[in-house]
Amino acid sequence: MSERVVVKNLAALSDGPVTVSGWVETVRDQKKVQFVVLRDESGAVQLVNPAVREVDPEVEGSAERLATTEAISALAHGSFITVTGELKHDERVKLGGIEVKVATLEVVTAANPETPIAADSSLDKRLDWRFLDLRQPKQALIFRIQTTFEHALRQYWIDNDFIEIHTPKLMASASESRAELFEVDYFEGKAYLAQSPQFFKQMAQSAGFGKVFEVGPAFRADPSFTSRHATEFTSVDAEISWIESHEDVMQLHEELLVAGFTAVKDKHGEQISELFGIELEVPSRPFPRIPLAEAKRIVAERGYEIPRADDDMDPEGERQIAAYVKETFGHDFVFLTDYASSIRPFYHMRNAEDGSLTNSYDLIYNGVEISTGAQREHRVDVLVEQAKEKGLEPEELEFYLDFFRYGVPAHGGFGMGLARVLMLMLHETSIREVTYLFRGPTRLAP
Amino acid sequence: MSERVVVKNLAALSDGPVTVSGWVETVRDQKKVQFVVLRDESGAVQLVNPAVREVDPEVEGSAERLATTEAISALAHGSFITVTGELKHDERVKLGGIEVKVATLEVVTAANPETPIAADSSLDKRLDWRFLDLRQPKQALIFRIQTTFEHALRQYWIDNDFIEIHTPKLMASASESRAELFEVDYFEGKAYLAQSPQFFKQMAQSAGFGKVFEVGPAFRADPSFTSRHATEFTSVDAEISWIESHEDVMQLHEELLVAGFTAVKDKHGEQISELFGIELEVPSRPFPRIPLAEAKRIVAERGYEIPRADDDMDPEGERQIAAYVKETFGHDFVFLTDYASSIRPFYHMRNAEDGSLTNSYDLIYNGVEISTGAQREHRVDVLVEQAKEKGLEPEELEFYLDFFRYGVPAHGGFGMGLARVLMLMLHETSIREVTYLFRGPTRLAP
Repeated sequence: MSERVVVKNLAALSDGPVTVSGWVETVRDQKKVQFVVLRDESGAVQLVNPAVREVDPEVEGSAERLATTEAISALAHGSFITVTGELKHDERVKLGGIEVKVATLEVVTAANPETPIAADSSLDKRLDWRFLDLRQPKQALIFRIQTTFEHALRQYWIDNDFIEIHTPKLMASASESRAELFEVDYFEGKAYLAQSPQFFKQMAQSAGFGKVFEVGPAFRADPSFTSRHATEFTSVDAEISWIESHEDVMQLHEELLVAGFTAVKDKHGEQISELFGIELEVPSRPFPRIPLAEAKRIVAERGYEIPRADDDMDPEGERQIAAYVKETFGHDFVFLTDYASSIRPFYHMRNAEDGSLTNSYDLIYNGVEISTGAQREHRVDVLVEQAKEKGLEPEELEFYLDFFRYGVPAHGGFGMGLARVLMLMLHETSIREVTYLFRGPTRLAP
Repeated sequence: MSERVVVKNLAALSDGPVTVSGWVETVRDQKKVQFVVLRDESGAVQLVNPAVREVDPEVEGSAERLATTEAISALAHGSFITVTGELKHDERVKLGGIEVKVATLEVVTAANPETPIAADSSLDKRLDWRFLDLRQPKQALIFRIQTTFEHALRQYWIDNDFIEIHTPKLMASASESRAELFEVDYFEGKAYLAQSPQFFKQMAQSAGFGKVFEVGPAFRADPSFTSRHATEFTSVDAEISWIESHEDVMQLHEELLVAGFTAVKDKHGEQISELFGIELEVPSRPFPRIPLAEAKRIVAERGYEIPRADDDMDPEGERQIAAYVKETFGHDFVFLTDYASSIRPFYHMRNAEDGSLTNSYDLIYNGVEISTGAQREHRVDVLVEQAKEKGLEPEELEFYLDFFRYGVPAHGGFGMGLARVLMLMLHETSIREVTYLFRGPTRLAP
């Protein structure tokens, strides 16, 4: 590879010859001097070129200088270039106190000069041109944050002896509800896209793996167009054996999030403050826990009537309880616990004292649900009963029920939407902003 | 959580009360004493129980002792139990020099006493009962190795400033050949499952991300039943900007593999030797590189005629060249470089001097291809020509071609099959052994 220096490393170098590569962010083509802001994956630097507008036969190299000057004049925004030149530290230069005086300039790919999106383009338009949208430092930072966040979770898992699994996304049956299932032509038959790794991370418990994690895609044929839903999303999953209750899962969950937020704040806190105007807070442990029934009373006392016939919260209820928790405990997270069994999947374990409740929780962050966790029912006879009660056909679930017939420890876990965490962390208004390439009912490209 | 101690941590404890949880591997029910081997995710330990076969009213607690004895007699292989008892170090105990004398025993889930698979069951049968198959220490070790290997790759990427991306698996068109494409019912239309993240990791180059990685599923509607193919597999992908040629990609690739193998040898070398009878070797850098044409000459000189009409190698040719490399350089890996453009995808860059060759490589490990890498064609006019030449419709590729129209750096990368690496590392005969849940034309369950 060439001795290219990435921009963020320039400041530490002494004045002298350097090579930089990146794309053209702006060109200021003045009569006597030209300025180019070149950006790469690490930052932006000013290039400066004393313009030579005609060949002076007396001056050696003036033909080359003219060619370089004309090349800069012709540079389209977005073209990728490699420049060699002299690095010079100069406090007067606003952009980082350095500049590079151009010696040679190579245009690697000239950009189409029409720019299809602008700062005020709609989100949908920006998504059409996502590869250009992502060139903005703010958008690129989102994916550096994602990288750091995920790595911190994985480091926690590795340090705590978890096994990483890659569960299949092609299944013979539904893993959650049949309603939101994508069907695949599979040779002579049909397959379905996994809505979650639920069954297969539970299988790992039966296999004696103890503690497992997975970060991978999940698919929901959900026709809704809200800012929180996608047909394909990255699911962060963990499942552990030998728990006493969902409390053990919540402890794991909050430790993981603290590890993730700590790493993000350490590595990107300053940039987040600069580009998003947010002082990222690492949440304190334990996160508040409120049983759902109590949360609903609190919300009602605040004057909000949840307009639902079932026992669930609604998005406004979640915002209300989050506001209460913020006011009362100064916390951005809250575990809502003990959801009614009527609104939970058949595989959630029910409360031993009150079968109308489950050993489960939702995790609310800044007023939005980011995760569901639970202890799982591991007694096969109870599991079969609960499946029937939910109107499922135990015959279709045979392969899953087998996991419980040959011994299985008590276990539980959670699934968490990665994009939701990022959206709420960065106060973005849609998961579309924090998903590399969003997929929705009417969006399959790019 | 209870104060459960995982088995591998018992040896370091002093004699005294402990709680252990796991599944029953064997029961030896002798008249005067009972032995149970309990296994958990970390190892196995012997439980010992002096049998009490009848209640002696004179002896306090003898009813409880009788109950425990009977519970042990009734234990089915595979049942998950929690035992409290007294840990005792005793050199005479073969299994780790420790045992636990049972005080209380709780059966968490009694296993169905019929064991559907045995040591000599066929692979297919074992896959039917994968959750039982994975209880074998050798099978479980595979996934600990996978975890360590992947984490080492990711650590390398993080240390080298890569961004992790999650590219969509739902696409509007094919990413590789239309022949092996799974079709999905997508609301009113159709979608296709990504055969690779190829287009989208290239998009990251156009987005200015610099260096990216992804570990995620890829799908091929490949009807073949070989030991090396699956319809869904975990693809390890990296893509980097500002390369000079595929040589830069190969350097990255071998550094990554050395990082992965070093971590696996450090953490699991002893166990691999014990359970697989293999002394794992960390490959030395640089890996040998042989242009394909030369490799074919070498193979021909060894007396093997490649029975193919095109310019490609075949599996036996790959074994032959690997044997040559092993004999000549003592190396398990070889990069075969400069594949003919006739057998490479349209997006591989061609050799600047000889357009019949590409800037590409296959990586062969222990005689089997595990990866393809290449410099990509980033000049859109050349790319369009190459697509047409391969019989593709540029119209269908418009969204991809756009990535190259607004500036893009020179770039390249590779995709590597995770299961193939593991299979060859552990001298397994099929990727089905090293895939958590294999998917093939006739296998969608469990």
